Amino acid sequence: MQWTKVLGLGLGAAAFLGLGIILGHFAIPKEASSPAPQDLDLQILETVMGQLNASRIRENLRELSREPHVATSPRDEDLVQLLLQRWRDPESGLDSAEASNYEVLLSFPSQEQPNLVHVVGPTGDIIYSCRQTEENLTGEQGGPDVVQPYAAYAPPGSPQAVNAAKHRVAAVLVYTDPADINDGLSSPSETFPNSWYLPPSGVERGSYYEYFGDPLTPYLPAIPSSFRLDLANVSGFPPIPTQPIGFQDARDLLCNLDGTLAPTTWQGALGCSYRLGPGFLPNGDFPADSQVNVSVHNRLELRNSSNVLGIIRGAVEPDRYVLYGNHRDSWVHGAVDPSSGTAVLLELSRVLGTLLKKGTWRPRRSIVFASWGAEEFGLIGSTEFTEEFFNKLQERTVAYINVDISVFANATLRVQGTPPVQSVVFSATKEIRSPGPGNLSIYDNWIRYFNRSSPVYGLVPSLGSLGAGSDYAPFIHFLGISSMDLAYTYDRSKTSARIYPTYHTAFDTFDYVDKFLDPGFGSHQAVAQTAGSVILRLSDSFFLPLNVSDYSETLLSFLQAAQQDLGALLEQHSISLGPLVAAVEKFDAEAAALGERISTLQNGSPDPLQVRMLNDQLMLLERTFLNPRAFPEERYYSHVLWAPRTGSVATFPGLSNACSRARDTAPGSEAWAEVQRQISIVVMALEGAAATLRPVADL
Amino acid sequence: MQWTKVLGLGLGAAAFLGLGIILGHFAIPKEASSPAPQDLDLQILETVMGQLNASRIRENLRELSREPHVATSPRDEDLVQLLLQRWRDPESGLDSAEASNYEVLLSFPSQEQPNLVHVVGPTGDIIYSCRQTEENLTGEQGGPDVVQPYAAYAPPGSPQAVNAAKHRVAAVLVYTDPADINDGLSSPSETFPNSWYLPPSGVERGSYYEYFGDPLTPYLPAIPSSFRLDLANVSGFPPIPTQPIGFQDARDLLCNLDGTLAPTTWQGALGCSYRLGPGFLPNGDFPADSQVNVSVHNRLELRNSSNVLGIIRGAVEPDRYVLYGNHRDSWVHGAVDPSSGTAVLLELSRVLGTLLKKGTWRPRRSIVFASWGAEEFGLIGSTEFTEEFFNKLQERTVAYINVDISVFANATLRVQGTPPVQSVVFSATKEIRSPGPGNLSIYDNWIRYFNRSSPVYGLVPSLGSLGAGSDYAPFIHFLGISSMDLAYTYDRSKTSARIYPTYHTAFDTFDYVDKFLDPGFGSHQAVAQTAGSVILRLSDSFFLPLNVSDYSETLLSFLQAAQQDLGALLEQHSISLGPLVAAVEKFDAEAAALGERISTLQNGSPDPLQVRMLNDQLMLLERTFLNPRAFPEERYYSHVLWAPRTGSVATFPGLSNACSRARDTAPGSEAWAEVQRQISIVVMALEGAAATLRPVADL
Repeated sequence: MQWTKVLGLGLGAAAFLGLGIILGHFAIPKEASSPAPQDLDLQILETVMGQLNASRIRENLRELSREPHVATSPRDEDLVQLLLQRWRDPESGLDSAEASNYEVLLSFPSQEQPNLVHVVGPTGDIIYSCRQTEENLTGEQGGPDVVQPYAAYAPPGSPQAVNAAKHRVAAVLVYTDPADINDGLSSPSETFPNSWYLPPSGVERGSYYEYFGDPLTPYLPAIPSSFRLDLANVSGFPPIPTQPIGFQDARDLLCNLDGTLAPTTWQGALGCSYRLGPGFLPNGDFPADSQVNVSVHNRLELRNSSNVLGIIRGAVEPDRYVLYGNHRDSWVHGAVDPSSGTAVLLELSRVLGTLLKKGTWRPRRSIVFASWGAEEFGLIGSTEFTEEFFNKLQERTVAYINVDISVFANATLRVQGTPPVQSVVFSATKEIRSPGPGNLSIYDNWIRYFNRSSPVYGLVPSLGSLGAGSDYAPFIHFLGISSMDLAYTYDRSKTSARIYPTYHTAFDTFDYVDKFLDPGFGSHQAVAQTAGSVILRLSDSFFLPLNVSDYSETLLSFLQAAQQDLGALLEQHSISLGPLVAAVEKFDAEAAALGERISTLQNGSPDPLQVRMLNDQLMLLERTFLNPRAFPEERYYSHVLWAPRTGSVATFPGLSNACSRARDTAPGSEAWAEVQRQISIVVMALEGAAATLRPVADL
Repeated sequence: MQWTKVLGLGLGAAAFLGLGIILGHFAIPKEASSPAPQDLDLQILETVMGQLNASRIRENLRELSREPHVATSPRDEDLVQLLLQRWRDPESGLDSAEASNYEVLLSFPSQEQPNLVHVVGPTGDIIYSCRQTEENLTGEQGGPDVVQPYAAYAPPGSPQAVNAAKHRVAAVLVYTDPADINDGLSSPSETFPNSWYLPPSGVERGSYYEYFGDPLTPYLPAIPSSFRLDLANVSGFPPIPTQPIGFQDARDLLCNLDGTLAPTTWQGALGCSYRLGPGFLPNGDFPADSQVNVSVHNRLELRNSSNVLGIIRGAVEPDRYVLYGNHRDSWVHGAVDPSSGTAVLLELSRVLGTLLKKGTWRPRRSIVFASWGAEEFGLIGSTEFTEEFFNKLQERTVAYINVDISVFANATLRVQGTPPVQSVVFSATKEIRSPGPGNLSIYDNWIRYFNRSSPVYGLVPSLGSLGAGSDYAPFIHFLGISSMDLAYTYDRSKTSARIYPTYHTAFDTFDYVDKFLDPGFGSHQAVAQTAGSVILRLSDSFFLPLNVSDYSETLLSFLQAAQQDLGALLEQHSISLGPLVAAVEKFDAEAAALGERISTLQNGSPDPLQVRMLNDQLMLLERTFLNPRAFPEERYYSHVLWAPRTGSVATFPGLSNACSRARDTAPGSEAWAEVQRQISIVVMALEGAAATLRPVADL
């Protein structure tokens, strides 16, 4: 999982007469004689649910997280082979599996010249050094393959200063405060390996590239022959040297800082008052006029990163793909991120593959399994894949299911997704027992933690909206494919940790998962079962279980927010929301009418072509919200409902952002024209969406 | 038909055992019991060919061209009603028909202040005036509805000068030289109504807007609520006043001009030597220091323009559309442009509608008939339609067939189209008798006028490539839908006229067609039959008759041109064509393999879903060549093979144009980087195209 860019919120025949003579057969009407169309088989579903095995997931995880496997490292490539071997296994493998390569620009710290952070005294001597590596607490933090903590894509340089004034910042040091990650705890006895909390030396690695995909080949697949930007023309890299440090080192620097007090919301749990500088405290550990020297020696390198793809060919509609993906690369051992997801992926492919190879089952549609490379550097493997196969994927993909970190914690399911996937996740989770005490379904457990009151359904679990934190981003934002991200997560009444505390550190190990996150691996199993059930329902159901009318609630909530929070302002500028109201109503009416036609058809005996046409309407609905010209400044973001929202009003992102920019400009400004343009773009998308939901031969 | 922007050239079982008991039926294998799938019915095809009637086309034309019907005029709206009435006729209409409106920016001359061109003497008095209207030769050139000759979208202004030096041009006068349009003839006795040639007073109207679509709403449908650009932000209008004049007036101005001789290629048939100015000849008709005053009073107006759409619902695959379109608006009576096409459209819809209403026939796929508005102003009706229904059309349209002017002359068929449509046009035209003497098929007649030697087929008729001269432009360039334009045209050994001589004048009347262009209307009938056969083949054939492997010839020819004419230059700049070679080879191999799979399937007993999947591959192939980010400066042009080519080498347009721009820049320039980027864009498109042609479950 990659650090999260915060985006807009949302919800996430037999009736013939036999006369006993052969010729009679020829008069049998078509519908009557066709065998029942292949549909979801509840017995197969039950078999799959029963065979997904927690112990096997645990063993997968042990193997996957045995060694650090940062993108393109030898161990990363070993895991490519492991995946290929599993997916090509004659008894439990898929129909076929292939690895494919992209030549992409990654960023690594130098092995010869480690990145350094020193305090330098007035005479120029080093009087303090931050740790170059994390403390070797379990024997797993010291190996040569543990990549030094660093900020990927931060430029090299060795600036020296103390807290230079705004606009003259020379370098950035980043740390995670115990208040944000450890519920305030910070001592070694309170932290890993004695608890799940981050040890004082732990440092969060990450990519500091602003966009996603290979930085040198935007919109082009990073195959060797592709045009690559000159480095000078790359945008999105941090402008100055940046280095992450542990909170132990941060305390030594921050608690010695002089100057005015930082705002209350900036204070943390390091046990001192945080000040803004400049200079160090007169009576602190360092002479007051000491400086901090940051030496960053990161290097950009072209590397070969692999995706691994495996397929189970659909029996009836092989050209419809249910895509299920997880990234493979970690920062260090990555037991949680991403191996908890890879362990689930392998177990799911084993169970389905075994049924396949036995001849017991073959899905109606194709199922594609994907192991993405170089996600941690910016969703690179998945993005390059979508660039290379843009049209094919857009035309044929039913949905994309992402499981990155499968278990953040073992309290409840958490789902992010577009509205049409809500119903299939609900159907799946109502039928699976929740891990842990009690006898609740995953659904009933989930609704206790995340819920909302739906005008249509009453109280239901609430889905989050998809940002850009993992490999679903190119699928939903760039290709317009209905997507979801599944995981087990926290009980928020028990921790306020921003994320599981060892995230992106060398302490994210098998024992950490086994001991603290999911002992017994019941939550891993629950995610595997949820994903498995969703995959089977999407791949086997005669009618696609995508409920497009569930988009209406999102649209109405966006519309209401626009009316309530922007209506008066827009009126002042003579901008009407009327066309938007009409478009939302039209969408709603067409979606409802389509739902009724589906019901009617389900009660009859529809032929496979009829259902295929209807399924195409459902599958392609999400595509109608794409407009590559809507936000030209936002690379890859083309979805007019889920693009990043920086404006404060929780409405259509283009409208929200345009209003934020226009608010302080004069009437008639270009910024106000852009507000009008953004409304027209949404109206066009909604009208287009409604048009695709209408009966196909209506003008 | 709109004046042509010159673009890149190119081509263009029952094996069961009956046991006599009812239960036995249940064991019947699926393939055996299904009725034969609906396929092209040769008897229906023959019926349609036989019923398309030349006299009825003639009567249609008489009615359609009875009055001038410039876009949005009352008569244009009358014709909307006429179309609706025909298409809603209970005995010969379609399943349904609707008119739809767009509010678009048009440009008209002022009724109160006509545009004027005067010669003004040294003392300021008017000593010569160009005609304001064409001479009323047949009683049809004088009515109040005959729009004054003008250059649509040319700005108003009244500059006065004589042949101002380059870069200080104050106004433009445009005329058509008898050398270009009249095979050199210019006297009244040699021209209409005495021959098909342009009379001396004839003036060609036209749109001078650079792009297409409504100028105020690029990429948005021009529905009333849509955001409209400020006029100040519109690009693509001519910068200075412009006015077209007849060659009679042009002779009076040009033959009196002084100065150096114009280049030989600029000389024409006005009977004098053309000079470049400045000033008038000392012994000519005007004082030497006379000036020309051009007064343009064109006005921009928001007008409601209608499209009319009618549909015959497909019986089996109603969500697959065969689109057939023609524009309705003319400049004056528009007997040729566009009513010759509308007359064919109405006859085709009558014949198909009659079969439909009788219950004799219903196509497998839906057939959509379109009558576009405001084409003459820049393909406005069709462009707005594609903007409004972008996704729906892109996902479902099998092909777009355009018939604008159906008969330019009566010598031969002429087809412009993308390579996949070649085969269906060949199949259709081989079965239809050519009009005129002899007993040739349209195909055999056609090959005598336009042919090429195909490496695959030997000598075949040659298709032209699609520019932007009519309503096919948004379909092929913006939506990536396989398109074609059909017409009957000239024997080039008999005339060198750029286009039929009365093009866009008030002399383009019914009698002109009836007497000179196509007496007996045999060529009109031939176009109707060709279009009808193509429509039936596309809408009724079980397997779509789109031969995607015919793209290979185009790609190979583009590749060879690149290698021969650019190879050395690219090598100097270390740019390799290797990846392009590999991509073309891959496309070729995949297309051939798909062709073999189709043949195998055709020889078996494929089920409708299998064929649907294969047809989707064929239908969607053209979409894979679209890239909205390939040519951001070229509005709407997204097709990487058919975008406008300004470079001199007949290869991939992006490559050709980028090389033209890079040629004179330094090695390593941005322009050379763009050459590399353009190669990558084509490689990506071809690799993506090959991927969509592969078996659908291959990774």
